[in-house]
Amino acid sequence: MSNILRIGIAGLGTVGTGVIKILEENAEVITARTGCNISITAVSAQNRDKDRGVDLSDYAWIDNPCDMATSDSVDVVVELIGGSDGVALDVVGSALKNKKHVVTANKALVAHHGYDLARIAESHNVSLLYEAAVAGGIPIIKAMKEGLAANNFTAVYGILNGTCNYILTQMRETGRDFADVLKDAQELGYAEADPSFDVGGIDAAHKLCILTALAFGVKPDFDALEVQGIDHLNATDIAFATDFGYRIKLLGVARKIDGKIMQVVEPCLVPIESALGKVEDVYNAVYVEGDFVQDPLFTGRGAGEGPTASSVVADIIDISRGISVPTFGVPVGELKDAQWVDMGATENRYYLRLNVIDKPGVIADVSAILRDHCISIEGMIQHGRDPGQAVPIVITTHETRHKDMLDAVQKIEKLENCVEKPCLMAIEEL
Amino acid sequence: MSNILRIGIAGLGTVGTGVIKILEENAEVITARTGCNISITAVSAQNRDKDRGVDLSDYAWIDNPCDMATSDSVDVVVELIGGSDGVALDVVGSALKNKKHVVTANKALVAHHGYDLARIAESHNVSLLYEAAVAGGIPIIKAMKEGLAANNFTAVYGILNGTCNYILTQMRETGRDFADVLKDAQELGYAEADPSFDVGGIDAAHKLCILTALAFGVKPDFDALEVQGIDHLNATDIAFATDFGYRIKLLGVARKIDGKIMQVVEPCLVPIESALGKVEDVYNAVYVEGDFVQDPLFTGRGAGEGPTASSVVADIIDISRGISVPTFGVPVGELKDAQWVDMGATENRYYLRLNVIDKPGVIADVSAILRDHCISIEGMIQHGRDPGQAVPIVITTHETRHKDMLDAVQKIEKLENCVEKPCLMAIEEL
Repeated sequence: MSNILRIGIAGLGTVGTGVIKILEENAEVITARTGCNISITAVSAQNRDKDRGVDLSDYAWIDNPCDMATSDSVDVVVELIGGSDGVALDVVGSALKNKKHVVTANKALVAHHGYDLARIAESHNVSLLYEAAVAGGIPIIKAMKEGLAANNFTAVYGILNGTCNYILTQMRETGRDFADVLKDAQELGYAEADPSFDVGGIDAAHKLCILTALAFGVKPDFDALEVQGIDHLNATDIAFATDFGYRIKLLGVARKIDGKIMQVVEPCLVPIESALGKVEDVYNAVYVEGDFVQDPLFTGRGAGEGPTASSVVADIIDISRGISVPTFGVPVGELKDAQWVDMGATENRYYLRLNVIDKPGVIADVSAILRDHCISIEGMIQHGRDPGQAVPIVITTHETRHKDMLDAVQKIEKLENCVEKPCLMAIEEL
Repeated sequence: MSNILRIGIAGLGTVGTGVIKILEENAEVITARTGCNISITAVSAQNRDKDRGVDLSDYAWIDNPCDMATSDSVDVVVELIGGSDGVALDVVGSALKNKKHVVTANKALVAHHGYDLARIAESHNVSLLYEAAVAGGIPIIKAMKEGLAANNFTAVYGILNGTCNYILTQMRETGRDFADVLKDAQELGYAEADPSFDVGGIDAAHKLCILTALAFGVKPDFDALEVQGIDHLNATDIAFATDFGYRIKLLGVARKIDGKIMQVVEPCLVPIESALGKVEDVYNAVYVEGDFVQDPLFTGRGAGEGPTASSVVADIIDISRGISVPTFGVPVGELKDAQWVDMGATENRYYLRLNVIDKPGVIADVSAILRDHCISIEGMIQHGRDPGQAVPIVITTHETRHKDMLDAVQKIEKLENCVEKPCLMAIEEL
């Protein structure tokens, strides 16, 4: 490793400018830690004239980021353009093929193309690093690839989207409904103008897909993921969950069951007093189950200029120190095609919230359907009475096969007195 | 790096046998991750005949662990003997001088001799790794050296001793006193027969000393640490703390103040709802403040066979992958002599519990002393009345100079009606 490392940054949004700030402001301590002069040589973005609050005059401006990938004056391309395909994919693929290391914060890219890109990186003997892609400033990728590498992993649970966790926390604290809280979150900058990737669970799913690959040594496979967002939850669900002793969290869960793997992102109930139940607001958290380590939990801000840029620069520091670990923890040749669990056959306890017309016989109808699907009721709450009007009823179940639950819900939904799509959530006793 | 790495294990207590179990049971996945056959070649312990539940017949038995340090069939010496001096120090020093990598779980050794050993390691171009020395299975050493290396650190806070945290949690949950709970903890195996290193704060201080060096790039200096244990706390303190909205935690705090460093281990009050306030039972946690990352918190089991061995093996895996980072994050030549903060000049809010004879004038006397030392009272609670008998009174203060507080407490202690040594704790608003 030469003692100069030349960095090209493609994409100058908040994270890109954060990376520039760190490399400038902390140059002294970073040089002491690495023995290497890490020097930005080139930058690229769509709009050259925008004021980003950092002085770019020392860096070569490159109009087409793909030119950075082939530039002789760049050793590491930092891809912060975003998007799973298009320019980002072109830049990263081209950089790796030109024997440049790549650092990216792009979870969509790694989730969709991580396997192919890892293969290119490996065959060209360069690194593809993506610490910033999962859980912002929390060094969870390094922890799973290195710090916990002595373990066979059995499960990973993550609160992977700060926007959703903020919205769910606000809904609970204020008793307001989803749409209302989302609007506030957008005004505060905690949610995007188009929030669908966040509240629809896609962003968390990209991240979980990466964690699954790392945990189980399998090829990342986004299409094998089941995803549900939080946009169908209402204030009633939050209140009922609290009554039962739970918090609702958008959880990414990857788990090994009899040699097969399940990976799912969905809102779940977790105990208020559990480690993940206590993670609130914009915080992210990842909880890992290994066969020797016990209960390691990593928490922190999952987004924002500082934390995300901190992880990008940590990856650059790894490269400057000559640290090289395979992209997904094992050489690409060792990455297996996962055998996916048949989700219908998984078992869980469930929370089921119905809105039903408050009439004699409704509970009997619902109970009969559950009985017919071998579903055992653990608890039932109905708040208030309003004869002839719709009232919410919540049922919690004992361990139930997922498919039985879905079939029962489908039947319940068709009952004349059921006036709204039922809300079904798994209960995770962490 | 050859693709065989030969391991010698000196010390076969719970951690040593844990390391053997991991290297045997997880050999397949570890080989896939490292591309290296990690093979135990030699073991050493005091008692050869003890049944440890693992088969040692494949490994060379070495009576004197110092012979392992010079053995031709060992690349990495794993030191699990313990103790800051004596055999452990001899083995580690000798191994490094013989160009063998060393992995240790020995916090006392690293706290007391880390600087000298790091110098030997560096000059012989080998690694000295000690992930297991701090917070068991939590990869906090790697996080500070690598994952968070983009940051200038401003503070580290740690709950670093599981025994103390368990005792404090039990005291709160059961209302029982220290000695009583300690006895139970010993029976459960959560406390040693001689608990003085744990409950006296020494164990946590060794760990904090290491974190201070990593955070601020200074030579570890155990003697510069202020240490107080938890053995003087009683059930009343725990109950009062709860009334004020706090938990009592044995906290290690290293903080940069105006370019100088303070490092102290002492019981503190932290808000019930704070990240560290929620860490209970045997769990450890480390909270890091950096200039870019925000609120990263690492939690997990701080001790035990599995977690500690998991960290030992992670260090071995790093060596097998050729990962090499300076012992304390920067080359020894860059490690500075710390300028230590004058603790008397630091400011904090305080909790002060007195036991006083319930007579007219007592509060007036105490208040006058506090006033004379410019100490402003924030709150005061007296539970119950018992005229002529001793009752506890708790006072919380606004920001106060540490020295003023100590002087005032010394005067209060001399009051005729003060019947017990006052209990003083800092309040950390995390």
